[in-house]
Amino acid sequence: MDKKKRIVIALGGNALGNTLPEQMAAVKITSKAIVDLIEEGCEVVIAHGNGPQVGMINNAMSALSREDPNQPNTPLSVCVAMSQAYIGYDLQNALREELLNRNITHIPVATMITQIRVDSDDPAFLNPSKPIGHFMTKEQAQEAEEKYGYIMREDAGRGYRRVVASPKPAQIIEIGAIRTLVDSGQLVIACGGGGIPVTLNGNHLKGASAVIDKDFASELLAEELDADVLIILTAVEKVAVNFGKPEEKWLDNLTTAEARTYMDEGHFAPGSMLPKVQAAVKFAESKEGRTALITLLEKAREGILGKTGTHIHR
Amino acid sequence: MDKKKRIVIALGGNALGNTLPEQMAAVKITSKAIVDLIEEGCEVVIAHGNGPQVGMINNAMSALSREDPNQPNTPLSVCVAMSQAYIGYDLQNALREELLNRNITHIPVATMITQIRVDSDDPAFLNPSKPIGHFMTKEQAQEAEEKYGYIMREDAGRGYRRVVASPKPAQIIEIGAIRTLVDSGQLVIACGGGGIPVTLNGNHLKGASAVIDKDFASELLAEELDADVLIILTAVEKVAVNFGKPEEKWLDNLTTAEARTYMDEGHFAPGSMLPKVQAAVKFAESKEGRTALITLLEKAREGILGKTGTHIHR
Repeated sequence: MDKKKRIVIALGGNALGNTLPEQMAAVKITSKAIVDLIEEGCEVVIAHGNGPQVGMINNAMSALSREDPNQPNTPLSVCVAMSQAYIGYDLQNALREELLNRNITHIPVATMITQIRVDSDDPAFLNPSKPIGHFMTKEQAQEAEEKYGYIMREDAGRGYRRVVASPKPAQIIEIGAIRTLVDSGQLVIACGGGGIPVTLNGNHLKGASAVIDKDFASELLAEELDADVLIILTAVEKVAVNFGKPEEKWLDNLTTAEARTYMDEGHFAPGSMLPKVQAAVKFAESKEGRTALITLLEKAREGILGKTGTHIHR
Repeated sequence: MDKKKRIVIALGGNALGNTLPEQMAAVKITSKAIVDLIEEGCEVVIAHGNGPQVGMINNAMSALSREDPNQPNTPLSVCVAMSQAYIGYDLQNALREELLNRNITHIPVATMITQIRVDSDDPAFLNPSKPIGHFMTKEQAQEAEEKYGYIMREDAGRGYRRVVASPKPAQIIEIGAIRTLVDSGQLVIACGGGGIPVTLNGNHLKGASAVIDKDFASELLAEELDADVLIILTAVEKVAVNFGKPEEKWLDNLTTAEARTYMDEGHFAPGSMLPKVQAAVKFAESKEGRTALITLLEKAREGILGKTGTHIHR
């Protein structure tokens, strides 16, 4: 490689486990794959999801409020902040250990608490649709609506869940600090859980009842850091069209024009592969020479060497 | 001021409020005092305690474990990590807003998740004495001992509380990242709650069931960043000898030799003023020209101008 490729990796929250023991095992596997990329000469920045983790923290804070009437309900934005530390602490330690185990001693690892501004008039706020937290009975759901102003939806016969908006990321508040660390050669974990969603009111940043899709947050981070590659890790090695049908086809390369056609034809599931392809297309189109890669965690090294995964480019 | 004074401030966790609404009010007052110092030309780094906050988070995670048998108990080190985000998110926003309100637009604010290594053979581990979390009945305490291996102590007739060790900080793991940001002129919040306590086992950092005194953690941070002044904020404007007695005397200046004499004579309460004076003495003796200041948050500006507070120097 002529010059160091700068890579932003988007890790799925589901790949980090549902409990702390699961997380501690998962971050070891994740760290091996990431340090593989560093050994290939890449400069890596890590963003990650937090679906199960922020749900768990939200449940814990609700359980506390029920036990202790002096503790008011904790806003979702605060739960996202806590999830960044909950995940970052384990992930940065596993990365540090894997680096040292391979005698890479010059790369410090750090987790940045990251807020991302969203527009308060983002249309997503008109139609909250992202379910978070645990299932409730109809009675519990009514109480949550009355007591906390939550918006509750019946979920396919399994009970009621809170739904929140999923607005687009507009600005990474702590980008200055992140860039300073990345430019000095440090391994940074940022924008955890898609970032803490905030809206701007004058000079005041206000936590929003929302979650930002971590693929879009990672894409913005990659643009802001002028990365060469955005790697979106998922549960399949490649993107498929006609997924699960006889004419199913796995894609090695995909131009952004082809990707748009496939999206229009409805090949990618909303809330699953669709946002990944959308984020990949946005990044590949943002500047000459930028590419995105969608693949499995375990295939990231082979992917960056061009041997597998789906590569999205102009 | 000829050159920018670099100041590390140790904020008390009690000054940050017991609930989220209290915290959001407290960080506004705190931010005014800190930006006052920046307006005086100082370069500021912030460390803080987390007593009430980590207790609250610990209670929330315990409440979750009781409700959901799939969720194992959350180690104290993870609760400390979460408290760094819980506090840092609000504090960094209040600081950002106060800076912008005064048209100071060139100083980014960031919170670093910070681990601090302690020695696994620190004598503090032989005698855990720092109470954390809520009061329990005798039956609850016995269950906690059996189920989680907690060490429980009866607390002055008010019930039982968990006690943990309070070892001395030996090494700030993320000091490289903190120094990079501070040296680039950013306002950094680090070592929250005294840092996440970890012990080293080969290349592995393991969370410790302990809390590190935030005054000692702040002192180490100040040494590592080659600060000029360590400000330890507390509930009194100055340090007193013969506190509460007829011969009570408030101190403006204190040499480290005088401070040692007063400490030997038992003038300062353990767990309260004593660790503050100990940390101040350690910092003042660590290098020529370093001083420590103990005062009220509201008096920090006057203190740094030499008009009030207790100044500790060689």
